[in-house]
Amino acid sequence: ERSYKITLLPGDGIGPEIIKVAVDVLKEIGSQEDIKFSFEEALVGGAAIDETGSPLPEKTLEICRGSDSVLLAAIGGYKWDNNPSHLRPERGLLGLRAGLNCFANLRPATVLPQLVDASSLKREIVEGVDIMVVRELTGGIYFGNPKGFGKNEKGERTGFNTMIYSESEIDRIARVGFETAQKRGGKLCSVDKANVLEVSQLWRERVTELGKEYPDVELSHMYVDNAAMQLIRAPKQFDTIVTGNIFGDILSDEASMLTGSIGMLPSASIPESGPGVYEPVHGSAPDIAGQDKANPLAQILSAAMLLRYALNEATAADRIEAAVLAALDAGYRTGDIMSAGMNLVGTKKMGEVVLQNL
Amino acid sequence: ERSYKITLLPGDGIGPEIIKVAVDVLKEIGSQEDIKFSFEEALVGGAAIDETGSPLPEKTLEICRGSDSVLLAAIGGYKWDNNPSHLRPERGLLGLRAGLNCFANLRPATVLPQLVDASSLKREIVEGVDIMVVRELTGGIYFGNPKGFGKNEKGERTGFNTMIYSESEIDRIARVGFETAQKRGGKLCSVDKANVLEVSQLWRERVTELGKEYPDVELSHMYVDNAAMQLIRAPKQFDTIVTGNIFGDILSDEASMLTGSIGMLPSASIPESGPGVYEPVHGSAPDIAGQDKANPLAQILSAAMLLRYALNEATAADRIEAAVLAALDAGYRTGDIMSAGMNLVGTKKMGEVVLQNL
Ligand SMILES: CC(C)[C@H](C(=O)O)[C@@H](O)C(=O)O
Ligand SMILES: CC(C)[C@H](C(=O)O)[C@@H](O)C(=O)O
Repeated sequence: ERSYKITLLPGDGIGPEIIKVAVDVLKEIGSQEDIKFSFEEALVGGAAIDETGSPLPEKTLEICRGSDSVLLAAIGGYKWDNNPSHLRPERGLLGLRAGLNCFANLRPATVLPQLVDASSLKREIVEGVDIMVVRELTGGIYFGNPKGFGKNEKGERTGFNTMIYSESEIDRIARVGFETAQKRGGKLCSVDKANVLEVSQLWRERVTELGKEYPDVELSHMYVDNAAMQLIRAPKQFDTIVTGNIFGDILSDEASMLTGSIGMLPSASIPESGPGVYEPVHGSAPDIAGQDKANPLAQILSAAMLLRYALNEATAADRIEAAVLAALDAGYRTGDIMSAGMNLVGTKKMGEVVLQNL
Repeated sequence: ERSYKITLLPGDGIGPEIIKVAVDVLKEIGSQEDIKFSFEEALVGGAAIDETGSPLPEKTLEICRGSDSVLLAAIGGYKWDNNPSHLRPERGLLGLRAGLNCFANLRPATVLPQLVDASSLKREIVEGVDIMVVRELTGGIYFGNPKGFGKNEKGERTGFNTMIYSESEIDRIARVGFETAQKRGGKLCSVDKANVLEVSQLWRERVTELGKEYPDVELSHMYVDNAAMQLIRAPKQFDTIVTGNIFGDILSDEASMLTGSIGMLPSASIPESGPGVYEPVHGSAPDIAGQDKANPLAQILSAAMLLRYALNEATAADRIEAAVLAALDAGYRTGDIMSAGMNLVGTKKMGEVVLQNL
């Protein structure tokens, strides 16, 4: 029997509902595959602000660090929208990424055959799309210094942030990009704005240099504005994309929306060593929280990604993914992916259907 | 008779071909509407590098400054792609914007009824889309200091840029946003990343404050990642978008691609006073340069925008726009917007058809 400690971060909004479903799925697969999970819950985001006054209590980081991997649901909500910035749920998420050194964010945008018609793009454009965005997550303009507020020579207030990357920061995320491409379609597109930004010039130089070590990967470079266009014009041209923090934030969200079903998409945030964070791409959806309406499948698929990448339990991961597809094949749909002739179900029922298919 | 001096910047690639067509259209409308144009051509981009060694010769700026308005075609091409960054065509464009103080970039993304099916998005999603992106063009991370290359404490090289806005820079672009919204659908969406960036917090604060002066405009705020998603999910929710330089670069390109016909889209770059720059959204398309294949309509519509915004010649602008629509209604299409049953024509022929419809 293998045994793993998983930290659960339910967070806010629909978080607690969907993570409960994913935990049930993990327990079931554990009993079938002889894997023992011990779960410990901790606070993050708005829930943590309400209970402790901080979006990321030190205790939460400790619990995460002491575990094999972290399953996060979602954070944020109207309630905290007007808080000062250090008391906002997002700070908890950024602190978690930085605190666990999760520098590589993997965001798949896969169009499932069962859900092609959920896309706002034409079937022939999106059918078969399978993109992995590898986003740098602990550097760039999100964390660069100096930042803050100042005065200019005219005495006006200014706000400023620094987009900065060092060689080693670029190298390590580029390697994740190349290695991800090797395991997928063998094509890596590096996205930057090297025609304007010095930080992107260093980025492009390093990625090009490292490319020589990966002759089996077909490397290309694209400006971020063009990438935003090409994702819409012809998304099938992309296999793996590697890019910096803010460009990755924008492009991975754009790519995920191509699928029309972001309620289906998991993501992984991975450090060089230690526990990573696995979470759905979608948000905390406060408008439907507590109503048994949320789609739990991205959370379940995040648990599968955790099994695959963090715990090397590929069989269990495969089986969960197959059970999710089987639930879709059987016609079950939550509201966000509902279409004519399908069977509309709630969060819990969708969880039960996945369990039955395990 | 009104008389205007127009600077022509043909630039690179398809630039010379399409600007020639637009000039013919301007001459024709001029003779019909009793407007006298005098044209002076100047060098910018790759063409300027080849002839003078600089992507923006001082003489070009002088000619522009001495004119009433600037009509630019497009710059760039493979030939200069490996030049050092100060010798790249893009520098000419950035220098022109800065040199003429063109702080406001207006980029419409309009889906024409004749071309709905050119979009990669479903008809019901894009039919009727009419978005104006107001992008700040002379500030933000494009021009912020410090920038460049350095070393970090570990002795590694770094590349860095600064995203900075002052109150007055935000205020003046926000006002353009509000005033543009007033003339359009009355809705302004300001896009930022205020949940992470200080520069965006100042942006949001100022835009909110100015909003009080425009009670007739319905103001909303959106994070840039969400905007990238919403443009795909439900583009009709947008009327006018106002945002900073790099976010505007990305989102305006994304929005333009929604239409499926960027060969149709003009843009305007406008200063507080003095001549502005009018140019197509599309690039210099070096792959089809000199082959009489390029779509000249965005260039013609840029000339119409110049008449409308720079010269206050609304009648002439209206008539050119009507002639372009008439050419489409008559079934004429260049390759980029071709569809079954239509009449495929080249650059020159398309120009002639527009002239006939004047
Ligand atoms: C909530 C926010 C800080 C976060 C980010 O910008 O990274 C989110 O958009 C994401 O992509 O996970
Ligand atoms: C060519 C490049 C410098 C330019 C920009 O980034 O502004 C272009 O993408 C644009 O949007 O006009």
